[in-house]
Amino acid sequence: MKKHILVGQSGGPTAVINASLYGVIREGMAHPDEIDHVYGMVNGIEGFLSGRVEDLSHGLSREQLELLKLTPAAYLGSCRYKLPEDLNAPVYPLLFEKFHRMNIGACFYIGGNDSMDTVDKLSRYAALKCIEIPMIGIPKTIDNDLMETDHTPGYGSAAKYVATTVREIVLDASVYQQKSVTIVELMGRHAGWVTAAAALARRKAEDNPLLIYLPEGDFDMERFAMDVERALGKKNSVVICVSEGLKDERGKFICEYSDEARLDTFGHKMLTGCGKILENFVRDRFGVKVRSIELNVNQRCSAMLSSLTDVEEAAMAGSFGVRAALKGATGKMVSFERGNEEAYDLSCGLKDVSLICNREKRFPLEWITGGGCDVGDEFLKYALPLIQGEPVRKMKDGMPEFLWRT
Amino acid sequence: MKKHILVGQSGGPTAVINASLYGVIREGMAHPDEIDHVYGMVNGIEGFLSGRVEDLSHGLSREQLELLKLTPAAYLGSCRYKLPEDLNAPVYPLLFEKFHRMNIGACFYIGGNDSMDTVDKLSRYAALKCIEIPMIGIPKTIDNDLMETDHTPGYGSAAKYVATTVREIVLDASVYQQKSVTIVELMGRHAGWVTAAAALARRKAEDNPLLIYLPEGDFDMERFAMDVERALGKKNSVVICVSEGLKDERGKFICEYSDEARLDTFGHKMLTGCGKILENFVRDRFGVKVRSIELNVNQRCSAMLSSLTDVEEAAMAGSFGVRAALKGATGKMVSFERGNEEAYDLSCGLKDVSLICNREKRFPLEWITGGGCDVGDEFLKYALPLIQGEPVRKMKDGMPEFLWRT
Repeated sequence: MKKHILVGQSGGPTAVINASLYGVIREGMAHPDEIDHVYGMVNGIEGFLSGRVEDLSHGLSREQLELLKLTPAAYLGSCRYKLPEDLNAPVYPLLFEKFHRMNIGACFYIGGNDSMDTVDKLSRYAALKCIEIPMIGIPKTIDNDLMETDHTPGYGSAAKYVATTVREIVLDASVYQQKSVTIVELMGRHAGWVTAAAALARRKAEDNPLLIYLPEGDFDMERFAMDVERALGKKNSVVICVSEGLKDERGKFICEYSDEARLDTFGHKMLTGCGKILENFVRDRFGVKVRSIELNVNQRCSAMLSSLTDVEEAAMAGSFGVRAALKGATGKMVSFERGNEEAYDLSCGLKDVSLICNREKRFPLEWITGGGCDVGDEFLKYALPLIQGEPVRKMKDGMPEFLWRT
Repeated sequence: MKKHILVGQSGGPTAVINASLYGVIREGMAHPDEIDHVYGMVNGIEGFLSGRVEDLSHGLSREQLELLKLTPAAYLGSCRYKLPEDLNAPVYPLLFEKFHRMNIGACFYIGGNDSMDTVDKLSRYAALKCIEIPMIGIPKTIDNDLMETDHTPGYGSAAKYVATTVREIVLDASVYQQKSVTIVELMGRHAGWVTAAAALARRKAEDNPLLIYLPEGDFDMERFAMDVERALGKKNSVVICVSEGLKDERGKFICEYSDEARLDTFGHKMLTGCGKILENFVRDRFGVKVRSIELNVNQRCSAMLSSLTDVEEAAMAGSFGVRAALKGATGKMVSFERGNEEAYDLSCGLKDVSLICNREKRFPLEWITGGGCDVGDEFLKYALPLIQGEPVRKMKDGMPEFLWRT
């Protein structure tokens, strides 16, 4: 008897998580002898538990599917729901009872390390109860911090957004003659991959951004002051890119340097990013014009500057996951494996989710150069293939068309 | 004897100020019997005074000119230099002596109201001294706040950037089930044009952003709280767009509601945008998840989301200015005049700079609707033609190519 497959999205949005969903749906529809419907969990496992399901294979037209592929955020909605550690918890039989009643033959969960934790627990429960429903994780995160994969879908588009936007900011910052410092705060609380992508904004080594700081290094205010002084000696306009997660050698976040005295008129503590803290520090120390810019959520949700390579790889990961499940794989995440040749060549593999969940892949310390204020050529060589190409987007009345569920 | 022409850029960067420069150069090169070289002032009138000039007609290749047309910021560099009110000041004979020595036949200044003030003073001085050098202003500002013109070059691209980016933020904000408020702070300290463009992000009237506040209205915290409460009753995810220049009925900026108690560890007063103030207010009042986002300089310098209509109109304004100077016009700014037909039709005109400089065109109060929390259809009808079309951009290694002077 033919079965259905079920797919969900979890964790933070990216520009290409829907391309992975597209990959799952299209591949699911390509095996009519084995797969009947492709169902989507609305708001992930949490929404599924409250009965929220949508028919994706029969509910969306071909044109809607193509729009889905280039729509950012998460079409099905997301959740941040952690399954209990105890596999005897009542939620597990409840979930598998629902799978059974819906005649689900395989489950796919698109997300980051927390989502891989969900896949891990579901597959372990299934093994324990001898239930043969493949559980497959499809990687997704702009942070690029998943183990066991060359990179993650979502990172290439975030990197392209950061590189392009920082290049525009560099031009913007250089129009006046006076000495100035522009500080751009980028995403990545624990891993510096997104911030490192600012190095791609340069045309040549001596270009702005002159300084780049990742959370993997110990950030020191006095060393920073010396770096800034040297940079101001080289250019009138200095652009500095910093990760939101900069920490000092004691492990204290720089953004926590704004102390409790900072209250607004309603008496609340005002949270400030590290960009703002560094802005004030530079203004005080050097007396130059300073501006800080926080790129914020558009790093993860800008589809307009997405990388075609990233979009296609995200879709490929979804397709590969479905084919792997049909062959009986379970408890695996689809991984990316880069060939050893000079020309970029990527293929998919499968890795045990248990090796991935609840771990983080940091930026390699040996790729951090300049005594902590730059990244080296190894990174550029690694990242450049991931930002190649631009999708052809459907526009209407001057605006991008996206697929909206509601 | 053939003469040269001189062109400068002044004030803040935009996505299309270089398209106007392109228009001046191309038109200048199209009249070889009357115009020899097109020279550029580097860093505006201030740089020109210190002798910084660049040959644009003979110094740039055809390919470089095409890159220039789609390069954001200000290729020639900018300045914020105000000429003295007193036309007897020594800077005037100094400037005209330089014009004379360089054999300059006409001057073009691309900028906003301050730049039109420069054009006004130079043309009045020339008239006073019977010097026949036409002085022409080419409008430029994302703020769209110049009098005597339907709109300004730069506004269409800023509007398209805001509308597109806000649409992506709306998608991003809607992935979770829980109640949330996202506040987007947009540029425009005195005029609400850029913020109003957020309304273009909607597909239909009931879409997010549910609330839009411009600086032209009196902002009241309690009325705001009622608006937010109503909006939270309609949608789980509420997106609110606010202008950086919101003021209360006493004329106090909302961003000044952060009081002097707010010091960082170095003892500095921390300046905060009104988005952050409202974020704290909403969190306190409603206890929901709140995030504020400041779109910052990319509103003015994003070439990647520029409007083709805006690019072409900016170039047209530059060309028209050169032709007007050849016919002897002086002390004028190139204006945009919209036809009365249903279909969008734009032509250029000339307006006395004295009617424009040091004045501001505010957003019409009658276009503000919903008791101050929205903009009406008249605005949408006005703005929609300005964001149409996307330029074909030259990319290299996954990144946009721009023309860099240094």
